[in-house]
Amino acid sequence: MERFLLPIAFLLLTAITAFLPVRNPKNRKEARPNIVLIVADDHGREAVGCYGNPVVKTPHIDRLAAEGTRFTNAFCTTASCSPSRSVLLTGLHNHANGMYGLEHREHHFSSFDTVRTLPVQLAKAGYRTARIGKFHVAPESAYHFQRVLQAGGTNNPASIGRSPVAMADLCYPLFSETSEQPFFLYFATDDPHRSNSVAPDGSPVFTSDQANRFGNRPGGYPQVHDVFYQPFQVRVPPYLPDTRAARLELAQYYESISRLDQGVERLVALLKETGQYDNTIIIYLSDNGAPFPGSKTTLYEPGMKLPLIVKLPKPQKPGFVQDAMVSWVDLTPTLLDFAGALSDTLYRQGRSFKTIVEQVKTTGWDEVYASHSLHEVTMYYPMRVLRERRYKLIFNIAHSLTFPMALDLYQSFTWQNVLQEKRKLYGKRSVEAYLHRPRFELYDLQNDPDEVHNLAGDPKHQAVLKRMQGKLKRFQQQTKDQWVSKWAFE
Amino acid sequence: MERFLLPIAFLLLTAITAFLPVRNPKNRKEARPNIVLIVADDHGREAVGCYGNPVVKTPHIDRLAAEGTRFTNAFCTTASCSPSRSVLLTGLHNHANGMYGLEHREHHFSSFDTVRTLPVQLAKAGYRTARIGKFHVAPESAYHFQRVLQAGGTNNPASIGRSPVAMADLCYPLFSETSEQPFFLYFATDDPHRSNSVAPDGSPVFTSDQANRFGNRPGGYPQVHDVFYQPFQVRVPPYLPDTRAARLELAQYYESISRLDQGVERLVALLKETGQYDNTIIIYLSDNGAPFPGSKTTLYEPGMKLPLIVKLPKPQKPGFVQDAMVSWVDLTPTLLDFAGALSDTLYRQGRSFKTIVEQVKTTGWDEVYASHSLHEVTMYYPMRVLRERRYKLIFNIAHSLTFPMALDLYQSFTWQNVLQEKRKLYGKRSVEAYLHRPRFELYDLQNDPDEVHNLAGDPKHQAVLKRMQGKLKRFQQQTKDQWVSKWAFE
Repeated sequence: MERFLLPIAFLLLTAITAFLPVRNPKNRKEARPNIVLIVADDHGREAVGCYGNPVVKTPHIDRLAAEGTRFTNAFCTTASCSPSRSVLLTGLHNHANGMYGLEHREHHFSSFDTVRTLPVQLAKAGYRTARIGKFHVAPESAYHFQRVLQAGGTNNPASIGRSPVAMADLCYPLFSETSEQPFFLYFATDDPHRSNSVAPDGSPVFTSDQANRFGNRPGGYPQVHDVFYQPFQVRVPPYLPDTRAARLELAQYYESISRLDQGVERLVALLKETGQYDNTIIIYLSDNGAPFPGSKTTLYEPGMKLPLIVKLPKPQKPGFVQDAMVSWVDLTPTLLDFAGALSDTLYRQGRSFKTIVEQVKTTGWDEVYASHSLHEVTMYYPMRVLRERRYKLIFNIAHSLTFPMALDLYQSFTWQNVLQEKRKLYGKRSVEAYLHRPRFELYDLQNDPDEVHNLAGDPKHQAVLKRMQGKLKRFQQQTKDQWVSKWAFE
Repeated sequence: MERFLLPIAFLLLTAITAFLPVRNPKNRKEARPNIVLIVADDHGREAVGCYGNPVVKTPHIDRLAAEGTRFTNAFCTTASCSPSRSVLLTGLHNHANGMYGLEHREHHFSSFDTVRTLPVQLAKAGYRTARIGKFHVAPESAYHFQRVLQAGGTNNPASIGRSPVAMADLCYPLFSETSEQPFFLYFATDDPHRSNSVAPDGSPVFTSDQANRFGNRPGGYPQVHDVFYQPFQVRVPPYLPDTRAARLELAQYYESISRLDQGVERLVALLKETGQYDNTIIIYLSDNGAPFPGSKTTLYEPGMKLPLIVKLPKPQKPGFVQDAMVSWVDLTPTLLDFAGALSDTLYRQGRSFKTIVEQVKTTGWDEVYASHSLHEVTMYYPMRVLRERRYKLIFNIAHSLTFPMALDLYQSFTWQNVLQEKRKLYGKRSVEAYLHRPRFELYDLQNDPDEVHNLAGDPKHQAVLKRMQGKLKRFQQQTKDQWVSKWAFE
């Protein structure tokens, strides 16, 4: 008799649940948008058309901004590829998720097995999750996506990441398949990162006496219309020296960015063609600033103040400009919020900005914290930052070290040229000040947007300094930062 | 018809191979000894009876030395638990196997998935592999042992590691089971490491105004006969201050060591009882020096010059004293050599000392290299060392940093007492010299065994300095050391 009971019970249960109100999140399709997260590699904000650069051609990124919301105070929390992506995908600072530095080869950093990531949580909530292009986080089990459309990565010779149009094409099956479940696509290009030439043993090869190609190559890439720039055309940002070397590299950089822009064009076209565009949140951002000394691997403004464009499924205020201060630690909570999957019990360090995307006047979005630990494993230089609207405090924990330079930035034509010409200045900052930093840097960004005049020793700013030091230390205590011990010990 | 062919072919093959000469390493039992590798946690050489300490009671470790070979120039290559164990078990320096620092909790270092470890290679060669006690390396897949008799670890509240006698008892089944295959036992105690009190969230709790208990507790441990020491009795080594605080801690340390010694006693008794003793190599060593500032986490002599006792299955020269210079990077090649499993094709950085264990006069064993990277993740302080018989060169790569102290050593009664009393000296070295080190330290150990007089700036020693710098840099190049870039960049 017993052997009949189980099937009968199962049938009964099935029949009952079929008539129950739909509570299973997997069935709430109508309320939940698709999510496309576009992560550019080293795309500094000073090289985006809609952020004020009149030379670089980014018409399709600009169009996303014209249809959606453009954030003017968006920040990564660490200007290094793997750590920054770990923050984007966990809602935890790198010092709390374990991804202290780069993931690949001998650097070998990885997040704790126990971190709960955006793709895994969205999958649990019923999303179809897929990634394409650069990954650069670990362990795979923690950052698991259900589908890997194709791998990328600047250290991967077989990477798709320099062909953003081809990347977009590979997403078509995801967009066009019939499903009750929304999708989450993580679309991470290799552009506009510097090219890494790779030796047979996998180690990088640099040329320091000519401009890096930033992935550009004779003959270009499939379906990409090359956009060329002349050195005299480019806009040299204040943090870079106005040299022939820097201009040559910027021209290559722009070309890489315009290629990336065409990937965005194709992605949007395919979303429209498959009827998904009006039910999809599209987010465009970069992991960190431009791959030049003075930006990437630093927490100066060029390294951490980044493009962020959010195109809602049905924007109410196309072209809205949002000046709320948000950071990459907020991204996972925000996207989980859009997905209706934001759990109150899950520990996280950012917060959802879903409700303020189109809000004219926001309160309580007036500061961000940043935390950088390492980049390459040999590049220990932990920094903690409190960035308010006017003032910015940088705590250089290992300040007595010479600021360590990433091998590709150190070997860059831009930097080597500065060394060869024995220039005292690098942009508006002295080379000496760039390489040897004090324990604390305090800047008044209102009067000194290029962070040249350190006010930490200024008697008139001691109250500001103390107030911000107190907040920064509390931030470290509250976010389980091991380096908080350095306030006492060093 | 076909269905009969396969069994027939199989029978034929079995019959043929039964008459072939035995080439399969799994069948060469007679030639291959069992291996017992005893790894003490922080047992400094100055606290072992047979290395000259007349106070501490280690009769059973001493007896191993009396029956086997005692090495007087044996060195770890990094004085930090996880990295040192990774070196022991891979034959690769930590900078080459990826285990740059501690494995547990937020430190989260691990070796590359691709490293080929001693237990895995011995298992492939037909050994039964088992471990008991402290592990502290990762990933488990790379360092896989077939059996885990019981887990240990000073950060594991359920650790067996403070009960070395009980640990030994748990090995009895391995010793007594009938098998054609020899065994490899990795026996790693928590003694004589400092006690870690652990808060509910798993973080360590320190008391800095009294002696640490080094695992000692009222009531003792099962089957262990407590051996107590009085502070006036202990021998204060030259690197420690002769204070009441240090003496109180040394007395506790000795007590922990005498407990460990009883584990060795039981282990040997069980090997004899099961008839394995005369077919077993027993090795006694420590991962690094004593858990006091001045030793552990440094590459000064007390941190890296360690006990090493090798009891061969059938010693020809009981009580032999070997002065060849060997290091922990040599251990995996040596044990693979004893197991007949030393492959010429496997990349390794050490070399087998099998043939010289009882050799009176050795040539070519007159230097060792050491490489320390981090300990806790916040304790970046890479050092590279060339230790010759007379001279020792230390390259402090991040010398501009204050020497970072492990939390348990910093909070120790010994150190806090020095700070409270504002002592200028710590042992024979000044506190200032201990905390702030030059880029290079060069010592003449013949005239300055306590490494107090740095000769790196001495005009008379520039030739020695240059010669040793050249060798050290070549060592880094040849062992794939990422930090070799620091010769040029910093």
